[in-house]
Amino acid sequence: MSTLELIEAAATRLSGHVRRTPLLSSPFLDEIAGRRVLVKPECLQHTGSFKFRGAWSAISALDPETRARGVIAYSSGNHAQGVAHAATLHGIASVIVMPSDAPRLKIDNTRALGAEVVLYDRGRESREEIGTALAGERGLTLIRPYDEPQVIAGQASVGLELAEQAGELGVDSGDVLVCCGGGGLTSGVALALEARAPGLRARPVEPEGFDDVKRSLASGTVSRNTSETGNICDAILTPEPGKITFPILSRLCGPGLAVSEDDALRAMALAFLRLKIVLEPGGAVSLAAALFHVDQVEGDSVIAVASGGNVDAAVFRTALERFA
Amino acid sequence: MSTLELIEAAATRLSGHVRRTPLLSSPFLDEIAGRRVLVKPECLQHTGSFKFRGAWSAISALDPETRARGVIAYSSGNHAQGVAHAATLHGIASVIVMPSDAPRLKIDNTRALGAEVVLYDRGRESREEIGTALAGERGLTLIRPYDEPQVIAGQASVGLELAEQAGELGVDSGDVLVCCGGGGLTSGVALALEARAPGLRARPVEPEGFDDVKRSLASGTVSRNTSETGNICDAILTPEPGKITFPILSRLCGPGLAVSEDDALRAMALAFLRLKIVLEPGGAVSLAAALFHVDQVEGDSVIAVASGGNVDAAVFRTALERFA
Repeated sequence: MSTLELIEAAATRLSGHVRRTPLLSSPFLDEIAGRRVLVKPECLQHTGSFKFRGAWSAISALDPETRARGVIAYSSGNHAQGVAHAATLHGIASVIVMPSDAPRLKIDNTRALGAEVVLYDRGRESREEIGTALAGERGLTLIRPYDEPQVIAGQASVGLELAEQAGELGVDSGDVLVCCGGGGLTSGVALALEARAPGLRARPVEPEGFDDVKRSLASGTVSRNTSETGNICDAILTPEPGKITFPILSRLCGPGLAVSEDDALRAMALAFLRLKIVLEPGGAVSLAAALFHVDQVEGDSVIAVASGGNVDAAVFRTALERFA
Repeated sequence: MSTLELIEAAATRLSGHVRRTPLLSSPFLDEIAGRRVLVKPECLQHTGSFKFRGAWSAISALDPETRARGVIAYSSGNHAQGVAHAATLHGIASVIVMPSDAPRLKIDNTRALGAEVVLYDRGRESREEIGTALAGERGLTLIRPYDEPQVIAGQASVGLELAEQAGELGVDSGDVLVCCGGGGLTSGVALALEARAPGLRARPVEPEGFDDVKRSLASGTVSRNTSETGNICDAILTPEPGKITFPILSRLCGPGLAVSEDDALRAMALAFLRLKIVLEPGGAVSLAAALFHVDQVEGDSVIAVASGGNVDAAVFRTALERFA
């Protein structure tokens, strides 16, 4: 099956189960950026982030017998909620391996969505090892957060919707900024745009100091981050680009961008004021780049995929206190 | 022209200009309400509230010569922003008469959207008199906030979308709770549902102590509020039901509901946590009734039209501090 066929098959399985998010805008944001700004609010997706798309895609693609034994995932939180909810809706069990320092809201929500949660120490333990061991013991299928073709195909549905929605607005060229951790969303969006809106170019956006994808794209070889903790954008702190995602990103994406924690918080405050949506720091870096790094962005219009909104109230209040 | 023809003509004029808002849900809200809860987030509409729909409808319905002289409106804020933005997009002037105690954000936004703002004292002056006088002096057309058939026809587009979206989910009966001030949105939604989804019943929701519509519906005669200030739900504090809207509400709506300020704030916090949207207190009373007055609501599913999100950051922070 070709990549495009994989994406289209995933879109068919997702139809009626995944929310088609709108494309938002505000003249106030246009003014800040000096161009038209369009925001795809995946915070409005089921479970509060785009991750539900990839989870639904992967689980729905399993053969029924394998699926019935249940699934397992490791995640900083959003993938966890996506897998837990998609599994419960499919009537199957899910085990989620989560870092013990993940936001309380994400841990609680994952349990409430029907998953069994296993916590691990982000600094000392490998989530991959724990996940693989548990999967083997119980016959569970591991749903990887980004290095998995069916997950990428699911995230690509964001790009299919974008191509259609931007086209309706007459926007057929420019940069599409995407919040980037392991690169599942960015590579999915890039593949969909290649097929359906080749004038739109995906570009990954990361937190400053955790810009492994940006550096890897610039040098052409995979570069790791020195740490996986110590930044407010917890949802997108990954060690290095994925093995499957990086070749896709290399082939299709424009240069990466990196934004500061303050810029992420400022973008959250502006999304509150002007778009009436709730973004988490890691879900706001794309909008931050669109608004505050205008010299690095090309086109009369810029699209920002705002990837998630699962933020603790205290962090959100801080963003409002400081920047709203 | 029949009422349905008026509504359909407005929908045609609105097409491509008004945002089709999605229908949101969360298993966490379903659990609180003990039934399926569907939320129509009009906070995501242009200018942050449903008011843009009615404003666009009324301005686009004017004959070109009349429209070219400009429009005027009086409003506690959301109608102001809707009229200002719709007027600017039509390339015409707008004058907005606003209470001097309206949230700062609303006054600033209205100016930034291109309107000339005239402030008045809500306790001592009549906005109707000021509006009528200014309209006469300058040849401006007064766009009334709710007692105007073209405005009601524009708000009805919320009901047309709802009928379609609820139908797709298999929901064809139950209560549709609508935040209610003068009744423009509620009567528009009620008219659209009568035509397209007769099993769905519109019900107005107001703040406790400002429940003129609820009392008027119960007694069958128009009843006034004793005050127009002193409640956090500033967007929906109106003196009495409209002359055009009340007969529609009487004919089509179920009994009204009234919720406390704390319930409105609590609903805002839950909309933040579970739906990732920003609601203002007056835009959250429908959700508050759906979640916290379950014994007064009928049906396996309940729909809440969350009418706006133009809230000062300080009020929003209070909602999060107390209830998130």
